Amino acid sequence: MALIVQKYGGTSVADLERIRNVAKRIVGAYDQGNDVVVILSAMAGITDSLIDMAQQVTHYPEKRELDVLLATGEQTTAALLAMTLNAMGYRAQSLLGFQAEVVTDCTFGNARIMDIGATRIKELVSSRTIVVIAGFQGCDVNGNITTLGRGGSDTSAVAIAAAIKADICEIYTDVNGVYTTDPNICSAARKIDRISYEEMLEMASLGAKVLQIRSVEFAKKYNVVVHVRSSFTEEEGTMVVNEDKSMERLVVSSVTVNKKEARITLIKVPDQPGIAARIFSPIAEAGINVDMIIQNRHSGKFNDLTFTVPTPDFEKAMELAREIAADIHAEDVLGDTNIAKVSVIGVGMKNHSGVATRMFSALAAKSINILMISTSEIRISCVIAEEYAELAVRTLHAAFGLDKS
Amino acid sequence: MALIVQKYGGTSVADLERIRNVAKRIVGAYDQGNDVVVILSAMAGITDSLIDMAQQVTHYPEKRELDVLLATGEQTTAALLAMTLNAMGYRAQSLLGFQAEVVTDCTFGNARIMDIGATRIKELVSSRTIVVIAGFQGCDVNGNITTLGRGGSDTSAVAIAAAIKADICEIYTDVNGVYTTDPNICSAARKIDRISYEEMLEMASLGAKVLQIRSVEFAKKYNVVVHVRSSFTEEEGTMVVNEDKSMERLVVSSVTVNKKEARITLIKVPDQPGIAARIFSPIAEAGINVDMIIQNRHSGKFNDLTFTVPTPDFEKAMELAREIAADIHAEDVLGDTNIAKVSVIGVGMKNHSGVATRMFSALAAKSINILMISTSEIRISCVIAEEYAELAVRTLHAAFGLDKS
Repeated sequence: MALIVQKYGGTSVADLERIRNVAKRIVGAYDQGNDVVVILSAMAGITDSLIDMAQQVTHYPEKRELDVLLATGEQTTAALLAMTLNAMGYRAQSLLGFQAEVVTDCTFGNARIMDIGATRIKELVSSRTIVVIAGFQGCDVNGNITTLGRGGSDTSAVAIAAAIKADICEIYTDVNGVYTTDPNICSAARKIDRISYEEMLEMASLGAKVLQIRSVEFAKKYNVVVHVRSSFTEEEGTMVVNEDKSMERLVVSSVTVNKKEARITLIKVPDQPGIAARIFSPIAEAGINVDMIIQNRHSGKFNDLTFTVPTPDFEKAMELAREIAADIHAEDVLGDTNIAKVSVIGVGMKNHSGVATRMFSALAAKSINILMISTSEIRISCVIAEEYAELAVRTLHAAFGLDKS
Repeated sequence: MALIVQKYGGTSVADLERIRNVAKRIVGAYDQGNDVVVILSAMAGITDSLIDMAQQVTHYPEKRELDVLLATGEQTTAALLAMTLNAMGYRAQSLLGFQAEVVTDCTFGNARIMDIGATRIKELVSSRTIVVIAGFQGCDVNGNITTLGRGGSDTSAVAIAAAIKADICEIYTDVNGVYTTDPNICSAARKIDRISYEEMLEMASLGAKVLQIRSVEFAKKYNVVVHVRSSFTEEEGTMVVNEDKSMERLVVSSVTVNKKEARITLIKVPDQPGIAARIFSPIAEAGINVDMIIQNRHSGKFNDLTFTVPTPDFEKAMELAREIAADIHAEDVLGDTNIAKVSVIGVGMKNHSGVATRMFSALAAKSINILMISTSEIRISCVIAEEYAELAVRTLHAAFGLDKS
């Protein structure tokens, strides 16, 4: 008999019918003698429509109040699910962020969990009550309601699983698990049975939407075993766990692609100490996240400097780049939104050489030109022209032996 | 400069446009140097649609969870209004029931306020922040969310006004104030400028929906000056205050009508001690509120006993009455749903005789038969056939000099 945390995403609780199905799945686990703590998202689309409503009030809604508004989404599903479980004859109780003692910092809209004083959760569990917790929300030390940012319910679930020392944290979503690559691009994509925290972190930071990146960090830090699976089937999903022996057999475990970045190049930047800081400080101050940065020697005492930013920030970043270029006497600023970043990820890379070469050769064989390269210990990313994105993904998926056997 | 509590009902905050209007009214008071604490209802219709949603889950939703669900309604409007005020450049903060320390008992769905530890409200007010409080909701000592029952936001407002010793509690609604009678029935109805707590209590208990009865009890107990007025005009409404000299000039200040009661008569009830208790205990146990009770001598050692119940409880009450009648050997049970209760109310009645006579004569002059009579110190009610209800109201309104001068 285990202590199980189950997290259900927005599509799994999108209406009363689906909430009933979720309830059935929960009591299935409960009736086997397990203790179950459930974390819920808002109904699919609700958070967006609440944000829309706030946007109609003002383009920059006060963040504290936006959190109060957004928190109603998860409050609604938590109450409805607890009600459904009660109506089925099971003891169940909903808890909001403040009731579950999810203490966060004061960063409204993107708060970080500081502590979970799970006394009430534990009390309820020990009386065999199914605990239904509103995800995504917490409470700062002053009793203000906070929210954890997009996908925050994943983080709620993993953090609560860590706090109550759950045996497993099941993340129910609308896909069967984590795939070797996007099945919409590559029909040979396979579901991954086991993946390490590190690989999952790289995938999440490269834009895979299966798990919020912070939830994976939490899982890694507290060794929470995470099971990503579908709420619409009984099929096993993907286990996210500590790196283990079996994983090392695969050098590369997945291929990802991100088309939502744009490239900016400053031509003939004077080669002086401190120039990089002068370039990137104003961009950081504007709240723009720079992803890759590459500097190459131009002729003479000059460098060319290229970096990528999220596409929605491209116009603003170009504007800033032009001001900076004038300021530091760079020759020109070039921009390009038609790029894609393809990456291969795998813990096996740590002990294998030749991964980069294999990647570059595979792309070259299809005449795909590489515009930028960046690497981490377990990842290699190449920026290419956007039109080659799908071809590159399929090529790399095959090249690293990920196609169905 | 005053400390003003303003409460806005559901129609006043029915959409973002109206919330903006409410915000303008608030800053109007604030800019004159007043401190303003606002209590809000949910958008019109929202509470009903949340109840509908719960009803789709189960006919008898767990009351604790229903309160969690319903509380989202006021949470939404409080956040949106605070956001609107912030966007207009004013310091404003929303507080939910638990944040405003509205401590209630544990009667989910109909909780009573036990205490308001208004430290946070006072702190915010003293920093010239406009405080926007979600009405209708509180929190029990265990941190569970509770709601105060229909119209509970009125009670929230008056209780908070009492707790922070506000100079006035303005209740903004969709009518201009309290009327001498229903203007839809009697075109001669006039707005009342000042009315006593006692009269308002009688009116509320007779079905006038302007104020929740408990809010008036609170106002009376803590001497809170209440101003009932429209959020759509600048016009002065009705002041609900302690009885004062000027009020005594009018013997009767209002006429009310209630068509939502039904009458049940037990014929030939044996005249024995304890028989009334045997009749009414099962009805009370079924949660049915009996309003009027009248017992008349039948021939011999028998009485006829008549009482009224709310129309929605009529079928159930008839069923119980038939069981009781068989049990105590009463001869028959008669029921009638086509009745109306007309009442005249006035503190002046205390010092004036002849009010009852004038009422009975006026009804008799229109050939309206009186089926039942009941009185309090400041009220006389007559049950009549429903078809005469409007005529009776207009007749009494004129008979007691309430028509427009």
